[in-house]
Amino acid sequence: MSILESLNSYEDIKTLDEAKLAALCEELRRFVVETTAERGGHLSSNLGVTELTVAIHRVFDTRRDRLLFDVGHQSYIHKILTGRRDKFGTLRAFGGISGFPKPGESEHDAFVAGHASSAISTALGMARARTLMGQDYNVIALVGDGALTGGLAYEGLCDAGASGEKMIVILNDNGMSIDKNVGAMARHLARLRLRHSYVAFKNGYRRLMRRIPGGSWLYGKLHTVKQAIKETIFHCTMFEDMGFSYLGPVDGHNIKSLVSALTIARDNSGPTLVHVITTKGKGCRYAEVNPDAFHGVRSFDPVTGLIPASPPGFSSVFGEELCAIAAENKRVMAVTAAMIHGTGLADFAARFPARFFDVGICEGHAVSMIGGAAHQGLIPVFAVYSTFLQRSYDMILQDMALGREHAVLAVDRAGLSGEDGETHQGSMDISYLCSVPNMTVWSPASFNELRDMLRFCVERETGPVAIRYPKGGEGEYTEGGVVPAKRLGEPGEDVTLVTYGISVNTALKAKAELKKRAVAVDLIKLGRVKPIDFELIDGSVAKTGRLAVLEESVADGCLGQQIAAGLLERGVRLNSLSLLNLGDRFIPHGSVEELRHLCGIDAKGVVKAILSMTGGPAHGKDET
Amino acid sequence: MSILESLNSYEDIKTLDEAKLAALCEELRRFVVETTAERGGHLSSNLGVTELTVAIHRVFDTRRDRLLFDVGHQSYIHKILTGRRDKFGTLRAFGGISGFPKPGESEHDAFVAGHASSAISTALGMARARTLMGQDYNVIALVGDGALTGGLAYEGLCDAGASGEKMIVILNDNGMSIDKNVGAMARHLARLRLRHSYVAFKNGYRRLMRRIPGGSWLYGKLHTVKQAIKETIFHCTMFEDMGFSYLGPVDGHNIKSLVSALTIARDNSGPTLVHVITTKGKGCRYAEVNPDAFHGVRSFDPVTGLIPASPPGFSSVFGEELCAIAAENKRVMAVTAAMIHGTGLADFAARFPARFFDVGICEGHAVSMIGGAAHQGLIPVFAVYSTFLQRSYDMILQDMALGREHAVLAVDRAGLSGEDGETHQGSMDISYLCSVPNMTVWSPASFNELRDMLRFCVERETGPVAIRYPKGGEGEYTEGGVVPAKRLGEPGEDVTLVTYGISVNTALKAKAELKKRAVAVDLIKLGRVKPIDFELIDGSVAKTGRLAVLEESVADGCLGQQIAAGLLERGVRLNSLSLLNLGDRFIPHGSVEELRHLCGIDAKGVVKAILSMTGGPAHGKDET
Repeated sequence: MSILESLNSYEDIKTLDEAKLAALCEELRRFVVETTAERGGHLSSNLGVTELTVAIHRVFDTRRDRLLFDVGHQSYIHKILTGRRDKFGTLRAFGGISGFPKPGESEHDAFVAGHASSAISTALGMARARTLMGQDYNVIALVGDGALTGGLAYEGLCDAGASGEKMIVILNDNGMSIDKNVGAMARHLARLRLRHSYVAFKNGYRRLMRRIPGGSWLYGKLHTVKQAIKETIFHCTMFEDMGFSYLGPVDGHNIKSLVSALTIARDNSGPTLVHVITTKGKGCRYAEVNPDAFHGVRSFDPVTGLIPASPPGFSSVFGEELCAIAAENKRVMAVTAAMIHGTGLADFAARFPARFFDVGICEGHAVSMIGGAAHQGLIPVFAVYSTFLQRSYDMILQDMALGREHAVLAVDRAGLSGEDGETHQGSMDISYLCSVPNMTVWSPASFNELRDMLRFCVERETGPVAIRYPKGGEGEYTEGGVVPAKRLGEPGEDVTLVTYGISVNTALKAKAELKKRAVAVDLIKLGRVKPIDFELIDGSVAKTGRLAVLEESVADGCLGQQIAAGLLERGVRLNSLSLLNLGDRFIPHGSVEELRHLCGIDAKGVVKAILSMTGGPAHGKDET
Repeated sequence: MSILESLNSYEDIKTLDEAKLAALCEELRRFVVETTAERGGHLSSNLGVTELTVAIHRVFDTRRDRLLFDVGHQSYIHKILTGRRDKFGTLRAFGGISGFPKPGESEHDAFVAGHASSAISTALGMARARTLMGQDYNVIALVGDGALTGGLAYEGLCDAGASGEKMIVILNDNGMSIDKNVGAMARHLARLRLRHSYVAFKNGYRRLMRRIPGGSWLYGKLHTVKQAIKETIFHCTMFEDMGFSYLGPVDGHNIKSLVSALTIARDNSGPTLVHVITTKGKGCRYAEVNPDAFHGVRSFDPVTGLIPASPPGFSSVFGEELCAIAAENKRVMAVTAAMIHGTGLADFAARFPARFFDVGICEGHAVSMIGGAAHQGLIPVFAVYSTFLQRSYDMILQDMALGREHAVLAVDRAGLSGEDGETHQGSMDISYLCSVPNMTVWSPASFNELRDMLRFCVERETGPVAIRYPKGGEGEYTEGGVVPAKRLGEPGEDVTLVTYGISVNTALKAKAELKKRAVAVDLIKLGRVKPIDFELIDGSVAKTGRLAVLEESVADGCLGQQIAAGLLERGVRLNSLSLLNLGDRFIPHGSVEELRHLCGIDAKGVVKAILSMTGGPAHGKDET
């Protein structure tokens, strides 16, 4: 029986000796590699925090102590050690273990996570609650160095440092964020890492002094000078300025050092920052060599590390087309928030380095910055996941839309994004982008449309514009063009079905299926979702009296609500309405197809909804 | 003729001698005091930057050089000096000069502003555009120390410092943000201010050494030691770590020093930070003594500085009631983002200091923080202006709504807020708050409702909840209660009018006016806007067939769209719809009543819209 298998209760890990702990770490790594090879997921970051997570569970008890993972994709080891070993094979599967912390899954998961840079803030809130309620537990935020580029982390650190609250921030410093760290914090951390050598030197020097005659006296004298220098050089870490006790750097793969440091931190009274140096991908050759490729990964060969080439997706098509546009148009610049690879911008970065900007995990800054660049004549394209762009809502309003700046938001992972779950679905962008005055929003349904619309957004639009497209590949619909609204197939007379983006494939299936059941669907695909081109819809609904709107959007603020109200406002009679969307809820993890089924927006769900509108296969209109 | 009156062209300021400049500053101050005393506006901050603004216009030419005001309320002197002297008496009036920079108003206004901490980002975008387009102009961001508490400013500084772009950040350090600075940056700046004395000492010391025999040699020897200390102590400003050349601190009321420093900065090649120390309210006794009171102020007596006591408003009622609730319930904590006074929390802060948290201009952090506090059992209430809460959209979703944390957003200045214009209207919160799954949103229409609903939100709600209320005072409607939907007056049969919040007063007026014209309005007031209680509306519209929805919200995502779609989804026949809202646009400055008229949502507009729905005073239903 392996050590991992022998751990029956949460307390057992506290009883293992050093040798067994080392062996346990090996087993944990193997288990994580095998599972992610099979199920996909985040590999490099979890391999990097193996010893650290084990050390945390040696020092703390996460049933009472609150352990907050920033971003949260580095919580696999934690999950395995806290009662989820046997279910871990269901990682990221519908109904299975989530790839992110989830309080509903275990009492050991202190809070939801998914977006970067918020854990320090949340931890501070918890620490304040503990203190005000007169309770006694530890609060620990585990934060990567990449997340420290985000302004939210800075806000959290400042407030936490000033608060004096007893809490621990563990800085998991692997010298990179998802792609590569940028900016001042990265430089600051690099300098702190050098301390490591200084501290080693100082200890050796002190031992030497003790051994020579008069050495102690000399050491004492020199010590005051050194102390002064040390105070000035080493006291001025940004963290100490902020009010934190700073501990580190600590070797993140040495459990003994980690346990010592965490114990000191636990017994300290105020805010403490433990700076831990880890290696992303540690212990797995191919992941150590290429941690980016194994950051978030689909299934791969666990022995060779061979990742099957992924088929072209909307992201890669976007990157390709943007390069083509930029080659012709010198005013085009591209921006990413630490997602060069995910957004398909790697080629752009290589081909046009002067016009490419990775701003770190700073979506807010990215939008304000491109607002300024656009105002002065560039055409900036900010490629960003729908869910992360939520953080830029205010900047889109103030620094992009208010001045009608011609900048392009390339909104990737719009709609359902699948296995990453609640925090990563692109379910909000229709609501929040449409609410913005002056915005134009395009929603391509195919690679060809993405190419054509992207070019149109860059070259022909004049104000703030977003182009939103899904994760993954296209479906059977492959046409191109830049058409605000068009009819697909023959104009049915029973019901008007409006959709946009990738959902057009589901709509086409539903239309075909309904035809078999003698229900004639008038399918209208919107290419542009703001402003809505109502001409075709008006004519169609005037004829059918029934409207269904299919979309991967949260309910309130969805396009269906906008269209229904728009029709009525212009006096088009609408007898019945069916809004087929994600509803007023957060959508869990699972395959996109499973999630569509869950929400009743797969072809079967659409057919069912439309049949119930038309009262079955008959052609008759509602006569209510 | 005064000097100010003698300035006929923009260039003239560059020709004045020192004595005249000093006199000009006095005149500018008097002019600003007189105008704000009459029109209301931002006094203290403009008095503080008088010399600084004059110096900027001596060194730069804002027709080419791009001067970006962070927040922007400190742009009065700039406006007066750039062609808007004669119109300045229309400050903040409908159709008059805006209280914030506005490119549409003058070529000298480089960009819109209104929210804090974004100017560095925008400036960097402009600097990048200049460099990539091979142009040659200066980019200057003028940023207050308060704005540096915001994470967005940190993101901008990091990227700007790393970029190496030639640009200037002028840090206008008056030792306070709107209320009081908090956190690490404030402490860091305090330490930098001490340098001032050090630099003065060092210069005197050097002069002394030159005068004594052997002094030069001694100075040289000592200098190397001192240099080492200086390098370590003084090199480690956060700004130099970030990649900025640091200049300062400079006396912000000495034009000569300011011109020297700005000239050095202009001639430097990379990013430069000029640290300027100013006094808020400078030169005006009462504003210097009490800068907070004269930050944003209504009209006052320019001689005595007496501000007429303002009548109770929703903010003060909120503050009062929250104190009452907190006195009974120890779990209540209150949070502000640098707006203690504006949000009515001053009494709370004084009475319950342990449970009161001013986090600085960090709306994002505030929400993530209260998410954590709520999760552990406190009941946090974050009081914040609707427009500034836009910055927390992602955190509301991720750290509050996803985990159904019971925290309360007290959303002040919801709906039209008047004279501050586009950047300050609370026109988005209905769209962005309703889009959030799991949220509950209440909208009191009177002081009594605010009291009752606030208590309900704190004591009875269990998940994430927002309570939104307008700027200023209540109208004729003064009832209390916590009712999701209620009918006001007799149930009319011609048209259903739904409204919520302060708009109920307009609706009541319209109903009375329409009654005179024989149109019977069924007026339904929603107390809760999410989730919508449809029972009354359904019954009413089933009878009238006509729906008008009156609200101070942007168009897309407004409650009218939600209600119309909801009715149709549940099979209620709706023949005609009139959405009376702010439309798909940003709303300029003016009195709230003028803005309502502009948008057609004053009583007259509502009457007109409903008459056009009902086809005049006849009772007949649409029979289309």
